Amino acid sequence: MNDVLEPLRVGVLGARGRMGLEVCKAVDAAGDLTLVSMIDAGEPLFNASDAGAQVLVDFTNPDVVMENLRWAIEQGISVVVGTSGFTEERHEQIRGWLADRPGVGVLIAPNFGIGAILMMQFAARAARYFDSVEIIEQHHPRKLDAPSGTAMHTAKVIAEARAAASCPPMPDATKEELAGARGTDVDGVRVHSIRAAGLVAHQEVLFGATGETLTIRHDSLDRSSFMPGVLLGVRNVRNRPGLTIGLDALLD
Amino acid sequence: MNDVLEPLRVGVLGARGRMGLEVCKAVDAAGDLTLVSMIDAGEPLFNASDAGAQVLVDFTNPDVVMENLRWAIEQGISVVVGTSGFTEERHEQIRGWLADRPGVGVLIAPNFGIGAILMMQFAARAARYFDSVEIIEQHHPRKLDAPSGTAMHTAKVIAEARAAASCPPMPDATKEELAGARGTDVDGVRVHSIRAAGLVAHQEVLFGATGETLTIRHDSLDRSSFMPGVLLGVRNVRNRPGLTIGLDALLD
Amino acid sequence: MNDVLEPLRVGVLGARGRMGLEVCKAVDAAGDLTLVSMIDAGEPLFNASDAGAQVLVDFTNPDVVMENLRWAIEQGISVVVGTSGFTEERHEQIRGWLADRPGVGVLIAPNFGIGAILMMQFAARAARYFDSVEIIEQHHPRKLDAPSGTAMHTAKVIAEARAAASCPPMPDATKEELAGARGTDVDGVRVHSIRAAGLVAHQEVLFGATGETLTIRHDSLDRSSFMPGVLLGVRNVRNRPGLTIGLDALLD
Amino acid sequence: MNDVLEPLRVGVLGARGRMGLEVCKAVDAAGDLTLVSMIDAGEPLFNASDAGAQVLVDFTNPDVVMENLRWAIEQGISVVVGTSGFTEERHEQIRGWLADRPGVGVLIAPNFGIGAILMMQFAARAARYFDSVEIIEQHHPRKLDAPSGTAMHTAKVIAEARAAASCPPMPDATKEELAGARGTDVDGVRVHSIRAAGLVAHQEVLFGATGETLTIRHDSLDRSSFMPGVLLGVRNVRNRPGLTIGLDALLD
Repeated sequence: MNDVLEPLRVGVLGARGRMGLEVCKAVDAAGDLTLVSMIDAGEPLFNASDAGAQVLVDFTNPDVVMENLRWAIEQGISVVVGTSGFTEERHEQIRGWLADRPGVGVLIAPNFGIGAILMMQFAARAARYFDSVEIIEQHHPRKLDAPSGTAMHTAKVIAEARAAASCPPMPDATKEELAGARGTDVDGVRVHSIRAAGLVAHQEVLFGATGETLTIRHDSLDRSSFMPGVLLGVRNVRNRPGLTIGLDALLD
Repeated sequence: MNDVLEPLRVGVLGARGRMGLEVCKAVDAAGDLTLVSMIDAGEPLFNASDAGAQVLVDFTNPDVVMENLRWAIEQGISVVVGTSGFTEERHEQIRGWLADRPGVGVLIAPNFGIGAILMMQFAARAARYFDSVEIIEQHHPRKLDAPSGTAMHTAKVIAEARAAASCPPMPDATKEELAGARGTDVDGVRVHSIRAAGLVAHQEVLFGATGETLTIRHDSLDRSSFMPGVLLGVRNVRNRPGLTIGLDALLD
Repeated sequence: MNDVLEPLRVGVLGARGRMGLEVCKAVDAAGDLTLVSMIDAGEPLFNASDAGAQVLVDFTNPDVVMENLRWAIEQGISVVVGTSGFTEERHEQIRGWLADRPGVGVLIAPNFGIGAILMMQFAARAARYFDSVEIIEQHHPRKLDAPSGTAMHTAKVIAEARAAASCPPMPDATKEELAGARGTDVDGVRVHSIRAAGLVAHQEVLFGATGETLTIRHDSLDRSSFMPGVLLGVRNVRNRPGLTIGLDALLD
Repeated sequence: MNDVLEPLRVGVLGARGRMGLEVCKAVDAAGDLTLVSMIDAGEPLFNASDAGAQVLVDFTNPDVVMENLRWAIEQGISVVVGTSGFTEERHEQIRGWLADRPGVGVLIAPNFGIGAILMMQFAARAARYFDSVEIIEQHHPRKLDAPSGTAMHTAKVIAEARAAASCPPMPDATKEELAGARGTDVDGVRVHSIRAAGLVAHQEVLFGATGETLTIRHDSLDRSSFMPGVLLGVRNVRNRPGLTIGLDALLD
C-alpha cells in the first residue's frame, strides 16, 4: 500500500468516446490514480508525455491504435489497450517495438469484464468433473447474433478442458425433439440463447453430475462493469514488461 | 376445522403400485384422513365399501379404471382419479353414471402437482402484460422428449392468453443464428430444453418488459410432490358433485 | 382496437420531474396516445384543457396534487396519479368531488410496477398451498432500510392469505442459530435482505412443499419499468368512473 | 488410460452403513474398479488383504478408524477415509505410521462433494475482485443449525482471501434494519439461511461490483453426489504417498 502515496499518472486516448469517457471518470474517482491527460482524435499525443503520463489507456480504433502504441513505447510509457482489430501480425510488430524497451508493458484485452473472465476460468476448471454442462445466455432483444460471443468462447474453453481430460460424451437420451429445443451444439456443448425485453447481458453455465449441479452465473448491467478490469490493467501493466494478451494473466 | 373431529375414510385402488403406495403413506400421515382400505389387482372392490370408504383414490390402469368408477358411483362413493387414458367418450359415460347419483363427485386429474399447476396459471395471467416470454425447462438426461409435456402446455396457455389480448409479436432482432440457439417455437413462444445429470424436473418461465423481468420457476424433486394435490382432491371431491376435470378447479 | 384510430389526448403534470419526463417519453412513444400538454410548477393548468387533454398524469408533490385533482375533475378530465402523500381523508374529499362528475375516473397508485404487483398477487394466491415460504430481497448497497417496503408488503399479504386458510406454522427445526441467520420475522414470514454492489432491485418469493418448490422472482432495472403500468392506467382510467386505489384493480 | 486394463481392487470398511452401501454400489458400477471386499463391524480386516485389496475406503466411526488405518498402512494398502473425528494428534500419528511405508497414501476428506469444494475454491478466488459478497444457503426444515457448516466454511475462506488482498469493508448504507434482516455476520461476510420444505441442500455465493454480479450456486440432491469425489480419491490415493487432508488437493 506504500506506493499509493504517489498516485499513478494516467492518460486516456480516445477520451471522448463512450468507453473513453467511462475510463476518465473511473481513473478520476480512484484515489491511487491521477488523470493527467485526455486526448481525442486530432489532438497531439505529446500532450500525454508533457503531462508526465506513466500509463496510457487506449480506446480508439483499429486505424490509429498501432501508431499510438509505436509512439508510447518509444516514450517508455506502458499502455492498456481496449481497442479491437488486433491480429497475430500486429502482435508481432508490437513485440518487436517492445524488444528495445525492456521496462515497458502493453496489455491488450478483448474483454475487461472481470466477472465474465472469472466465469470462463471457473467453467474451464469445473468442466472435467461433471458429466454434463450446458450454457444458457440471456440478452436484450436488440442483439443481432445468437449465441453471444462470450457464450461461444465459453463453450470452446469447456470443450477443450473436457477433451484434455478425455471426458466421455455427455448423457442425453433425447429421441423426439422439436427442432431447436435442445439448443445449438458448439464443439459438443449445448448453448441456449434467450432474448427478452428487460434483459441486459447474462450468462449461466450449468454443470451436472449424479445428485448435484453447480451453476456459475454472470449478470452484467452496463459498461461501467468493465472499469474495474481496466483499472486492474492500469495498476499492473508496468509490472509486466512486454506484451500481455488478455486480462486473465492478471487475475491471480 | 370442526369437521376434522371425524376423519374422512379413504380407500386406495392400485394400492401396491408406485403412486398407490405413495398415496397410502400420505393418507396415513394426514390427521384428518383415515386409510380404511388398500386394494390391488385381483382383490374385490367391495372390501372398500365394507370398510366404509367415503372417498376412493384410483391409480390403476386404463383397462380397469372405468369398471372401478362404475362400481364406486353405484355405491355412492366419490373418486379421485390419477389413472390416465381418458377420452371425451369416457367422460360422457361417467357423466351419465353420475346423473343418477347427485351426491357423488369424480375428479380426474392429469397432473396433481400443485406447484406446476400454479406456475401455468400464473404464466397465463402474466402473459398479456409483458413484451417477451420464453420457457426454459430442465430435466434429467434420461428423458426421451424435448420439450417436456409441461413446457408444451405452458407455451400453449401463454400463446392463447397473448392472442386473446391482441399482444404484438415479441421483439427479436436476431439476424445470425446458429441453428437451434434460439430454441424451438411453440405457438410463437420460444422453448429451451436443458438436459443434464443431477437435474430432476424444473421449469422457468421468463417474462420481460422495459426495465424489468418476472420469473416463475418450479422445481420438482420426486413423486411425493404430487401428494398434496391428491389430498386436496380427496378432501374436496365430495363437495363437487358431478365430473371435474383437472385440479385447477379446486385451486381457488 | 377501433378506438385506436383516434389517439387518446394526454397531458402530464410535473412534466420536468424525473418520473414526469419518463411519462412524457412513454406517452410520446405510444402509437395510441398523443402527448398534448406538458405542465410543470408555476405553469397554468388550463393549458391542459386548452390542448384538449382527455387524461392527465400527475407526478407532482403532495402540496399541489389535491388542487390539481379538484381542477381536473371540475373540467371532466380523468387523472392517473403517481404522487404520494394520500390519506383516507384525501380519498374521501376526492370521492366527494367525483360524486358530481359521474364520467370522470381517478386512479391513485402507490406502485406502477406491473411485475411487482403480479409477484405480490401470485404470492398471495400460492401462499395457502405450501408448507413454507420465505422472501429474499436484493438491493444496491445505498439503500437505507432493510427489508424493503415491497418485501414487507409481500410478507403481509402472504401472512393474511395463510391466516385466512388456517395454515399451520411453517416447519423449522432450527436449534442453534447465529443471530440473524434466519432473517427477520414479518408476521410469521422470514425475510432476508441482501445488499451488494451491482444489484438494483430484486425480490424472490420461495414456496416449498414436500418434494417441490415454486419461486416467483422480480428483477427491476430502472424507473422505465414503471411506464407500462402508467400507460395501462392512462388507457383505462376513463372506463373506471370514481376513485380507484392501486393498479391491482386494472390487472385482469 | 493404459492401466484401465487391470481394474483397481477396492475394499470397503463400514460396508453396511448408509455411506458404505453407496460406495459399494459406486465402485461396483465403475468399469475401472473392482469391489473385492465388503467388511462391516465385527468382521476381520484380513478379509480385505486376502482378497487382494489395493485401496480401502473407510466410512466407519471415530472409535475404530485409527485401528483400521494402522492395520492397512502396515499391510501396504492405501486408504480413502470419509469417517469423521480427526484431530491434529491423529494426523501426526498417521504420519508416523506412514513414515515407514513410503508407497502408501492416506486421504482424509471431511467433504467428498466435488461441486461444493469447487464452489468454495471459486469463491475464494473471486473474493478479492468484488466490492460485495453475501452467502445464501437453503436447506430442508429439519436441519438443526443455521448457518450450515459449508456456509460457515465458505464465509471464512472468503474473509481470508479478502484480508490477504487488503479489500476495504463492503459498502452497506443500511440505517433502519428489522433485527436479522441483513443475516448473520461471519468474519465480515453476511450469511442468510433459508429453511423450507422441498429444499435439500443448496448454496449461493453472490459477488457484486459496479454494474455486474457473479453468482456461484451449488445444489445437492442426495448422498450419491459424494460418490464421484470418493472415486476420485480411490483412483488417485496411491499416487499421493503420505497423508493428504481434503479432496481439494486432488482437484487440479
